[in-house]
Amino acid sequence: MDKPNILNKVRVVLSHTTHPGNIGAAARAMKTMGLHHLYLINPRYFPDPQADAMAAGADDLLRDAIVCASIDEALQGVVFTVAMTARLRDISVEVKTPHEAAPLLLQEAVSQPVALLFGTEMSGLTNDEMGKAQVLVNIPANPDFSSLNLAAAVQVMGYELKVASQTFLPSVNTINPASHEQVEGFFAHLEKTLFEIGFFTTQHPARLMQRLRRLYARARLEQEEINILRGILSAATEYNARLKKRYLEEHSDV
Amino acid sequence: MDKPNILNKVRVVLSHTTHPGNIGAAARAMKTMGLHHLYLINPRYFPDPQADAMAAGADDLLRDAIVCASIDEALQGVVFTVAMTARLRDISVEVKTPHEAAPLLLQEAVSQPVALLFGTEMSGLTNDEMGKAQVLVNIPANPDFSSLNLAAAVQVMGYELKVASQTFLPSVNTINPASHEQVEGFFAHLEKTLFEIGFFTTQHPARLMQRLRRLYARARLEQEEINILRGILSAATEYNARLKKRYLEEHSDV
Repeated sequence: MDKPNILNKVRVVLSHTTHPGNIGAAARAMKTMGLHHLYLINPRYFPDPQADAMAAGADDLLRDAIVCASIDEALQGVVFTVAMTARLRDISVEVKTPHEAAPLLLQEAVSQPVALLFGTEMSGLTNDEMGKAQVLVNIPANPDFSSLNLAAAVQVMGYELKVASQTFLPSVNTINPASHEQVEGFFAHLEKTLFEIGFFTTQHPARLMQRLRRLYARARLEQEEINILRGILSAATEYNARLKKRYLEEHSDV
Repeated sequence: MDKPNILNKVRVVLSHTTHPGNIGAAARAMKTMGLHHLYLINPRYFPDPQADAMAAGADDLLRDAIVCASIDEALQGVVFTVAMTARLRDISVEVKTPHEAAPLLLQEAVSQPVALLFGTEMSGLTNDEMGKAQVLVNIPANPDFSSLNLAAAVQVMGYELKVASQTFLPSVNTINPASHEQVEGFFAHLEKTLFEIGFFTTQHPARLMQRLRRLYARARLEQEEINILRGILSAATEYNARLKKRYLEEHSDV
């Protein structure tokens, strides 16, 4: 029993792909697994005859592909992002297997679009890009030769989604997760506030923001929670502003 | 906890591959999943620079690849063969998913070599080739676009083997399965005998042999059982020969 609709909510996002042939092969892999929405962040060459050749019948996906200038543009409206990583980095975040991640992704797709995020052929995703995801996924591989071809990685993850979709049952208690841009709005507000209140003077801002991103990625923020958190941030800066104002009034000679 | 030895018992057999680039891409897919033994049945072009280019670091697998003139040569010594099929044909045989087949294959690999068999890019495996397998595997796919690239199919099946190998525990009661050539010897003997005893006069020989192959594929014949069956076949023809001889003696005028 297939649920084609649920796979329709999944977008595959390829970041800064170098070889257009890989874009075509990825489109073919997607289509075989029932995935249809391809997003390309700054591909080096696209459209390109090599992409068409490797798509081998999945040229409709290439025609409909959306080329974006930034990751935030590609994740617009997305509530859950899975980032693929070949390396297991130092940052302390849970890394799941494709088999574990696929049902999670479908569960989130019940309400809103979700994304699978793939990095470049040579170096994968940047830390900043991975910071936009709620879950990291690592495909188990030969430790001496772990570099899957980009389209092969799309194939494996698409396969697990296809398998999961065949037995998928939406759970009743879904939360109402915030969209990518709401979450990013919160992080921008948080970072600005931490600067304003002078928190970053003794800390490493980028590293600390990454840790805070991980924390809130685990929490899966709802829209209302974001409103509350941003209310707190505003209160903190206003309090700060009042203090500053009073200080300036009392010390007009400064 | 990996069991690299068990994956070392798996050979990947590509039959009559048309595009050498696919052989290279398949080798790369194999190596990322810890598979190392590549067998090629009558590849159209091999070795070939395109194969080397697509292998992208798995050129050792291409260098060690064994080119065979027939499927029986490629399956020499193999006790269990899984054949990949994109189409679900009319023949009444159980078709498993990659996830179901992977642990079965590893279980058989405890004692002897096992094989994963892939057909050509255009038409897959022939019925004769599929008749050499004990299990058929179909990768779940989009019914409107089910044609995975050859290397992509190798990647998916290799992925499931890699995953299965990580939790694999050999079961205690393994049977002692006959090798590919012992089973083929039995089928040749059986076919010859059925001709001799006149069974095929009203039947379609090829179709019937295929049904008998399916039956014995399910049974997983042991070497001793093959000895017994072949003994029965010999007895039948000897009995036949005795009857014929006596008949000729009694009717010397015929």
